[in-house]
Amino acid sequence: MLSAVLRGGRVAIHTGLRSWRALSSLVNNGSCRILKSPPLVSLDLLDDWSCSTDQDHQGSVAFPNHSNQLNTALIDGKAIAEEIRSKIANEVIRMKSVIGKTPGLALILVGDRRDCQIYVRNKILACKEAGIRSEVAELPECCSEDEILSALTNFNENPEIHGVLVQLPLPERLDEGKILSMLPLEKDVDGFHPLNMGNLAMKGREPLFIPCTPKGCVELLLRSGVEIMGKRAVVIGRSNIVGLPTSLLLQRHHATVTVLHALSKNPEKISREADIVVAAVGIPNLVRGSWLKPGVVVIDVGTYPIEDPSSDHGYRLLGDVSYGEAVNVASAITPVPGGVGPMTVVMLLLNTLEYAKRFYGFS
Amino acid sequence: MLSAVLRGGRVAIHTGLRSWRALSSLVNNGSCRILKSPPLVSLDLLDDWSCSTDQDHQGSVAFPNHSNQLNTALIDGKAIAEEIRSKIANEVIRMKSVIGKTPGLALILVGDRRDCQIYVRNKILACKEAGIRSEVAELPECCSEDEILSALTNFNENPEIHGVLVQLPLPERLDEGKILSMLPLEKDVDGFHPLNMGNLAMKGREPLFIPCTPKGCVELLLRSGVEIMGKRAVVIGRSNIVGLPTSLLLQRHHATVTVLHALSKNPEKISREADIVVAAVGIPNLVRGSWLKPGVVVIDVGTYPIEDPSSDHGYRLLGDVSYGEAVNVASAITPVPGGVGPMTVVMLLLNTLEYAKRFYGFS
Repeated sequence: MLSAVLRGGRVAIHTGLRSWRALSSLVNNGSCRILKSPPLVSLDLLDDWSCSTDQDHQGSVAFPNHSNQLNTALIDGKAIAEEIRSKIANEVIRMKSVIGKTPGLALILVGDRRDCQIYVRNKILACKEAGIRSEVAELPECCSEDEILSALTNFNENPEIHGVLVQLPLPERLDEGKILSMLPLEKDVDGFHPLNMGNLAMKGREPLFIPCTPKGCVELLLRSGVEIMGKRAVVIGRSNIVGLPTSLLLQRHHATVTVLHALSKNPEKISREADIVVAAVGIPNLVRGSWLKPGVVVIDVGTYPIEDPSSDHGYRLLGDVSYGEAVNVASAITPVPGGVGPMTVVMLLLNTLEYAKRFYGFS
Repeated sequence: MLSAVLRGGRVAIHTGLRSWRALSSLVNNGSCRILKSPPLVSLDLLDDWSCSTDQDHQGSVAFPNHSNQLNTALIDGKAIAEEIRSKIANEVIRMKSVIGKTPGLALILVGDRRDCQIYVRNKILACKEAGIRSEVAELPECCSEDEILSALTNFNENPEIHGVLVQLPLPERLDEGKILSMLPLEKDVDGFHPLNMGNLAMKGREPLFIPCTPKGCVELLLRSGVEIMGKRAVVIGRSNIVGLPTSLLLQRHHATVTVLHALSKNPEKISREADIVVAAVGIPNLVRGSWLKPGVVVIDVGTYPIEDPSSDHGYRLLGDVSYGEAVNVASAITPVPGGVGPMTVVMLLLNTLEYAKRFYGFS
């Protein structure tokens, strides 16, 4: 499906298909490798500079061509996530039938932030749909660090739990670093442990888990047939949760990555150089049409809730990207909601399943 | 000396001095903070996007102006390293006189690569000059992994040894990752442990050691009065030893960092956008004058030995940057040799001293 070939002295990944929908369909109807794209973590290639300084390489680039706005593809994260979730559910059933075991995910929710409650609720629901057992420890806003650590310890020691996550952000008065460092590496399905991050950053090493949102972003690109290798990728935002690991993962896929942050000068100009933009800041509509090069692929991680009495839930979500403007410029774009969000949740299920399989030696 | 001020809604670091020589002199004649620039690891600032999208910030930038080649400053790594080494030597004497202890560094050299032998010899010499005790385990090219691991274990268990390093590269048949993972985190003065790298990468965390070459590069910039925050920095090369940690460290200093590698397209064009270029590839003269923007600051990490019968040692070192061309474009540049190399060695001494101080609780 994906193959590395040498063409004109240049290594290139070819999908054989140009349409992300066609590729997505192929990927999701394939064999067991559908659970994740094979080269998700990295494509190991020699850093051979001798072939990179020629300038006549554009001919071999299979990047989406943008002619007009009608061609802009909507990257339907909800549909892609649903297909992956369905495959996870099948794998959970197979695991249960063969060894009589079910993956288990534990969630710790502190306080009453509405967005955190929604995220946790969605994760529980997704677990249920995939047949993964979930447990939640809900703690009040005013709880002590010791109470959180106690809940963590219980989950850590429970062999039926294969992934533990603490819903972030925690109330500010709590020491997030200390609490997260109590998570054992092998159950850190969010992948936020610094050892995991170091292994993601370093060549020749493999992380146990790739953080869910970055993994979801790159899966969307891969399953949409977007070439990453050699492309200029701009990651806007440098959070430990999204921006940093996304930049590291894109670099593993041989993109030329630039990280923009609040202290970057001329972010608009730099962003406009990118073939792929991943926006993960949390400021609605920060990225305007003028930040984007025609034909760019846009992954919008932002989910900022604003009041909206006309909506079913009384609020709606805004992304970091001005969708109305971007859709006139980009060749492909994720919507908010329905883009990265569903992928994040399904990657969490996948990380949990993967650890459960390792734990039980089931393949 | 270095202070963060808010000017026109923009946080900026001002040195108060524009000349790197003047600043270097001030730094090195100061108090105990001379051993390293105080904000070397990071400048913690809020990622406040609201102040970054204005475009009229150039007025507050104190970046070196380049008018003609005569103004190009030579960043004299040898002189700066010598001043730092002298301060380390004083600190070692003080430690000996107060608690009767001396820092100790252990080196493991495998095989007979000439460059590795030179590096190890230089490190031993530098230890001697700083009063740091050094021990070397020299193993033949054909030695087994077990022999290396045995030498490592001896050093790890020796309380008089405060830093252990394995001279890289190891012969190809050996499992470098496995051998390096035997280094205990607290004696990993090279800072190559993945947990250390994760802590360097993540906001809000601190690495125990910053890898020596990246630390030396950023020290050269800081002591030369080069502003890093908000600048576009291009790191050429993405090795675990130099490129990766340098990019992470520059990002901690709030540069907008782009990492170029062998699969990057148009590296020349992207490099030309940078205010700071750090070249760490190991290909002599890869970076030509056309890769550089006028006024750029160039840090050349490359040290490629070529035969030269006219030289004292029968060889000479070439950098990654075409010095003759770059000197006509850059506002400041490190020479090869005499730039980054001496700083790497002195940062190793500093990391060893720092761990010895932590180990003995000496401050």
